[in-house]
This record gives sequence, structure tokens and C-alpha cells, in this order.
Amino acid sequence: MSLTDTIVALATPAGTGAIGIIRLSGPEAISIAASVFKGKDLSKQASHTLHFGKINDGQVVIDEVLASIFVAPHSYTKENSVEFSCHGSAYIIAQIIKLLISKGARMAKPGEFTMRAFLNGQLDLSQAEAVADLIASQNAASHQIAMNQMRGGFSSELQGLRSELINFASLVELELDFSEEDVEFANRAQMKNLILQILKVITRLINSFELGNVIKNGIPVVIAGKPNVGKSTLLNALLNEERAIVSEIAGTTRDTIEDEMSIQGLRFRFIDTAGIRETDDVIEAKGVARSMEKINSSAVILYVYDALQTSLSELQTIITEFRPILEKNNSTLFLVENKSDKNNAAPYKIEGLRHIQISALLKTGMQKLENELVKLVDIAALESGQSIVSNLRHAEALQNAATALEKVLNGIDNPITSDFLAMDIKQALQHLGEITGSISTDDLLDNIFSKFCIGK
Amino acid sequence: MSLTDTIVALATPAGTGAIGIIRLSGPEAISIAASVFKGKDLSKQASHTLHFGKINDGQVVIDEVLASIFVAPHSYTKENSVEFSCHGSAYIIAQIIKLLISKGARMAKPGEFTMRAFLNGQLDLSQAEAVADLIASQNAASHQIAMNQMRGGFSSELQGLRSELINFASLVELELDFSEEDVEFANRAQMKNLILQILKVITRLINSFELGNVIKNGIPVVIAGKPNVGKSTLLNALLNEERAIVSEIAGTTRDTIEDEMSIQGLRFRFIDTAGIRETDDVIEAKGVARSMEKINSSAVILYVYDALQTSLSELQTIITEFRPILEKNNSTLFLVENKSDKNNAAPYKIEGLRHIQISALLKTGMQKLENELVKLVDIAALESGQSIVSNLRHAEALQNAATALEKVLNGIDNPITSDFLAMDIKQALQHLGEITGSISTDDLLDNIFSKFCIGK
Repeated sequence: MSLTDTIVALATPAGTGAIGIIRLSGPEAISIAASVFKGKDLSKQASHTLHFGKINDGQVVIDEVLASIFVAPHSYTKENSVEFSCHGSAYIIAQIIKLLISKGARMAKPGEFTMRAFLNGQLDLSQAEAVADLIASQNAASHQIAMNQMRGGFSSELQGLRSELINFASLVELELDFSEEDVEFANRAQMKNLILQILKVITRLINSFELGNVIKNGIPVVIAGKPNVGKSTLLNALLNEERAIVSEIAGTTRDTIEDEMSIQGLRFRFIDTAGIRETDDVIEAKGVARSMEKINSSAVILYVYDALQTSLSELQTIITEFRPILEKNNSTLFLVENKSDKNNAAPYKIEGLRHIQISALLKTGMQKLENELVKLVDIAALESGQSIVSNLRHAEALQNAATALEKVLNGIDNPITSDFLAMDIKQALQHLGEITGSISTDDLLDNIFSKFCIGK
Repeated sequence: MSLTDTIVALATPAGTGAIGIIRLSGPEAISIAASVFKGKDLSKQASHTLHFGKINDGQVVIDEVLASIFVAPHSYTKENSVEFSCHGSAYIIAQIIKLLISKGARMAKPGEFTMRAFLNGQLDLSQAEAVADLIASQNAASHQIAMNQMRGGFSSELQGLRSELINFASLVELELDFSEEDVEFANRAQMKNLILQILKVITRLINSFELGNVIKNGIPVVIAGKPNVGKSTLLNALLNEERAIVSEIAGTTRDTIEDEMSIQGLRFRFIDTAGIRETDDVIEAKGVARSMEKINSSAVILYVYDALQTSLSELQTIITEFRPILEKNNSTLFLVENKSDKNNAAPYKIEGLRHIQISALLKTGMQKLENELVKLVDIAALESGQSIVSNLRHAEALQNAATALEKVLNGIDNPITSDFLAMDIKQALQHLGEITGSISTDDLLDNIFSKFCIGK
């Protein structure tokens, strides 16, 4: 975790492009940059200025570049920083980085610029993690959650509540010094109030994780049904491409096929499965088993049927078999009547289930199906701009903090000695601190930042 | 070729990265940028300054960005320009570009920024073409040629000589007005001197194209020989990877295998071929025919043999068959004795050919072979920093200019009337002007810049 050296990396995606950005950060960033730059003396330039010049390796001109100067603490990392905007040739970029390393910089590790921003207090840990989420964001919803989190989101609120709790903790600690006198410096009623307030915030955040997780990783939607009811045709219609092979032959799809699609800013992961039937074919039987696995692990099941081939009572029997799965997973089942173009009868109704008529082949009813899928997501929470937790690490830390706080509450209501109370409060403080990085270990930081791209 | 609108494009490679750069250029670049930027008023900032702020679409924050301001004429295009450095998410980049288009920018065509730089006089045409070569450069040699050309190279020299020739042309034109008086305003001796001087420069440049072309496109080196002498093993040793499948079975390689490698800053294109022998196998026979094609079109032939399997007289017979090909193509043949580890005898010598002993399997003798290959290239010309033409368009225009100038010379020596002389001079001026873009057509520019990447 040394901050005394100067790091360098390509910050733009690899590959040929008009421009490549090479980023330097650290105490010597400006002097190293100045030593290879022919033009104005970069070490004498004001922060936030741009300078055109050449990068020379001895007599050889490597490139004509623009240098951006950021003088500490006015940079992303709060260190001296320079960005060279050069021609986007892999050869040129490699030459410049090699030259900068020969002048004393070292290659940055993944996420090391953002780690320095965190270590230098530019961002807290949850904000730093949001930077990676922001870069990975693929649609409006995941973008909005990441942006909210990067701009402070819940961490500033937690930070404030945690500080208040620290005050109480120190008062309780103080009681330990006077344990023989049986005094209470920390007002128990006030402390209880604060903890209830923190628990309220935490509980809302923990509850938001279901939504946040679904938005970040996509909502799994499995397409299930008997063979040859048009499941693969429905997948293709949803994705708007010929993703799965379709044919008139029952059992065409054997393995599960997955692909993603953004609908109204939300990410859905559609899973086409092998048709469910009793079969002697070994490969098909394996496919059917996989279908059942997928049905068991998806938030949404689109049960597709062909009304001309399936009677209402038959459908009811099938659905009865699904009920325990739905209850166990708290998942949603849609009855999707496909091939509606060939059938004029009114759709079957089964109490408590949503019904949609479509023709996957003619792509009718698709808009309605998409709208119903989007309705499953609590868009209101998203649109209200409330903080949503999308990071499993945060959700776990919040859950641990809640457990510790419940214990504190319990200790206040069923009085225990100050030393036990102090221990439970410390536990809660620890878990809350892990989220914002007030408390962190090298291992934790390595684990978080190693998942970043190089140059960020 | 309108320069009145404002263009926008992503200037960094597509894909996820730490940073993406979105570039705006045109009269409204700064005002459009200012209209979406929350922070300082970008329209009031000095050129070459950097500003941190947010890009807002109405109430939605799309990203936190750095804006670089370039006020005309102090930019690459000589127009007002802004570069937004945003988080490198494809979603964010698409949102920002969409927003900028909604505010009045339009999507840039490939190479349009550089075309504007040319049209606004920042670069001449050969310099603009060098920008694309620079981005595509993959090794020291091609990089150096492109850099030299981008920084003026031969075009400034040609420009000067062309101006002098224009003076003479106008004097000859003047003679036409006084054609009845038989005066000579243009001193024929001086004009002849100038043309000889131009021809000298042009001839050197035309001659440099052979080298320039080889450096830009790679030097084709074909590996030929009888079956099972270790040609594929040699290819793998040169490339330092298991590119071709090797086995003890004669005829393992059937199709030609090509791959590239930079050696000492030069690009070589190595071509492994099927072993040459009489065969009844239809597929192998096709392979042998392809080998002969490659031998016929390569600058360098590495003829590989196994001295334990081949007598000197046999080798001499084979080489005799190669001689006409070498003479016709002005190509070079190396005798490469492979499997030298299994043979202690002195290598065969054949007059006028280079000999190298190697063991492709043990990778001995490889360094010497590489050095010999590099020696084939006129590194001296490259290292002297002389201008080298690597662009076919330039080579052709230079050749056409030379032809026209020869006609002018001829017209001076065997006096023809001023009007014919004027016509030939005009022809030469036209071709010289095509190189630097003093004379250009929309079609020519479209053709050149359409090969650029978007955002450059």
C-alpha cells in the first residue's frame, strides 16, 4: 500500500483508436513526465492546464501528445498526476510506457489509481466500488444505482450515524473505567433511539439489495413448457435475433440457451430450456433435468403452452406441480399462451396467475409481455432516487451490523454490564466501518481493487 | 465538405476501460458542451484548460467528467474543440453522444477530425495520411517513417520546389500572351536546372518506395524445401510459438501458413509452405502448387534442406531451377541447412548464395538468421532520417510528376512552343500538388479519410 512511488498505466481500452491516454500518478508524476516531454517545462505549469509537445526518447520522437497537468491535491488520486493523450497505436503506447518506467515510474496494478483516491480520502470505499460498477453499467437502472452510490449515496448517511454511535461507544467505554461506581455516562434512552434509527436505515438498505442485485446482475427469466410449444421462438422474439435454432421437431433445444437483453433500462437474462416431457433419450433427459434446475433458480418463469394441444385441466395439473417451487423461491409464474394466431378461444384463467396471449412467430403480444416483466421490478424505488444496495459485500456487512445492533438493543432492554454492551457496539461499528472503508484490511482492499481494470 | 456544423465522436477504442474520450469540433463545440455541463461555464474558459463537472441530461446525472477546452484556432482541427473524459462504459458514452447530438452536434464520419485539420491548413494531405499510418504503426521502422512524414517529411521540400516551378510556369504562360513577339520571359537554363533538381529529389523518393512499402506492409519471407526438412519447425522457432503443426510425417503441412513477427523493429511476414515433391495425392499437389506461387511472389526465400538427406549436386540442381525466379523478382535466396545438430560436416557452399546452419528444433543459429534477414533492409537509409515514401498514392503521383518533368526537359532541349511547354509543366504541378493536397478533389479526400478510424 505504498503511496511513495509513481504509477503509470494505459487508461483507455486496448486496441487501435484515435487517442490513447497514458496516466501517471504519484509524487514524481510531473517531474517524470517533464523529463520526457519536449515543449513547455511541465514542472512549471499550473494545475488543470493542457500542453502540446513531443515525447522524446533521446533523439527519437515517439509521438506528438497533449499533456494534462493535475497538481496535488487537485486530481482524482489527490496526488500529482499527468495524462498524456497520444496517438492510439499499441506500439506508441508501449514505447511511451516503457520510457516512463525507465524514468522511475512503475506499472500500476488493477484499480490502483482508484485505491489511491480511496487511501488519500477522495472517495470512501463504497464510492470507490461504485466506480467499477459505473464502468460496467450497461443500462439506465444499473447506471443510476452506481452513479448514486459513487456520489455518496447511503455511505454519507451511514457515516453520520456511525459517528454518533462512536460517541456513545466512548461513553460506555468510559463507564468501564468507573465500573466500581456503577455510573451511566451514556444515556440509555438516547442510545436506544439512535440504534433504532440506524436499524431503520439499515433495514431499508438490506431490503433494497434484492432489487439492487437483480438490477446489477439481471433478472433471470426462464422459459419453460412442453416440447414444441414455441419456447425457442419466444426467446428469439424477445432478443430480436435468431439466437436459438427453431424447428417443427419436438425436442430441438437440448441444452439451455441464455442471453441478455435490456428492456426499458432493465437487464433481463432469458433462459430457453429443453421442453419438459418423459423421455428415453439420454441426452434429452439430461436437458430436461437442466430445465428443472433453471426453473428452480429463476425469479420469473414464463410457462409457455399451446391451447390447441393443452386442456385447461391439464394446465391446472401442471401448475399445481409448480406451486411449491414458486412458494419456496418467492418467484413469479406467467402463463404464456403461444400460437394465439391459430386459436380464437378466450385464454384459460387460473386464479392467482398472470395470463398473456402471444404469437412468438408473428411477434404479437410481445410488448405487453415486456411491460409485465418490467412491472415486476420496483421501479418506484429506483425512480425515487433512494439509495439501493447492489453490492453483496455491503449487504452482508449491513446484515452483520443489524445483528450486532439487535444485540445492543437487547442488552439495553435486559441490562447487561457495560463491558458486554461495549463489545456489541464495537461489533456494529466494525461492520458499518467495513462498508465505507473506515475499517479495512490490505486483503479486503486487494480483493476489491484487483477486480478493477488497469488504468482506473 | 461543410465546416459549418459541429461533429462528435468517441475518440478512444470501443470497449470497457477506465476512461473514454468524446470529442467535439466545430463552431458550436464549446457552446454545445457548455449546455450539458454542470460546473464552471465552459463558454467562458481559456483555451487549454481542464474542468471537472457533471454531464446532466435534464435532472439525470449521466457522468462526472473532465472537460478539455480548445479555443479556435488552437486545436487539432483549428476549430473550437472540447474533449470530455468520462468513465469508459459503453452505456455512458452512448448516452453522452446522444445528448450532444440532441443539442445540435452530428456524428463524425471516419477521419473527419483530421480532414478538418487538413481543410483548415493544420496539416497538408501527406501529413494527414501519416496520422493514419502512425496509428497503424506496429514497429520501430513503420513508426519512424510515419512520424517523419507527419512532421513534414518530404512534403515541405516538395512544396518549396513546386512553388519555384509555379513561378516559371507563370512566366511561360506570360510568353503565350506575347507569342507573336517571340520573347522568352522564363530563362530556359535556370528552368532546366530547377527541373533537374526536382527530378533528383523525386527520383530518390521514388526509389525509397521499395523500402517504404516493405517496411509498411512487412517483408514476405517464404520457407521452402522438400518434405520433412523442418520448415514448420523453423516457422515456429522464428515466431517463438507453436504456430504450425509439426510431425515426423512428410507432408504434414498442406496449406500455406502465414504469420508476422517484428525483428529488430522491422516487420517480416513468414510463410510456411508444403514440402515440394512429385505427388499423386490431390490435396498435397494443390499444396505444392501454392508453395510455388508463394516462392514466386516473395522477396526472400529460405530454402531449407537436411544435409544428411541431400547431396551437394542434388542441391545444385534444385538451386539452378530457382535461379530464373530470383532474377525475375530480384529476390534473395538463403540456403538454410537445418538439423545441424545431427551433422558435423562443413556446410555446402554454392557460389553467390548465403549459407546458414541452424537447428530449428534446438533453436541454434536463429540469431544469425535473423541478423541476415535484417541486413537485407537498407537500415542506413532509415537511420539517416531521410524521407521514405511508404504510400502507394504518393509513389504513383511522384512517378507521374517525373514523367511530366522529363517531357518538359525534352521540350526545353528540343525547343517546342511555349503553349506545349506550359501544358507539360502544368501536368507536373498537378501531380506534385496531389501529394500535399494543394490540388485535391472531394472524391480523393473521401477515399483517403474513409480509411481512418472514427474519432480521428
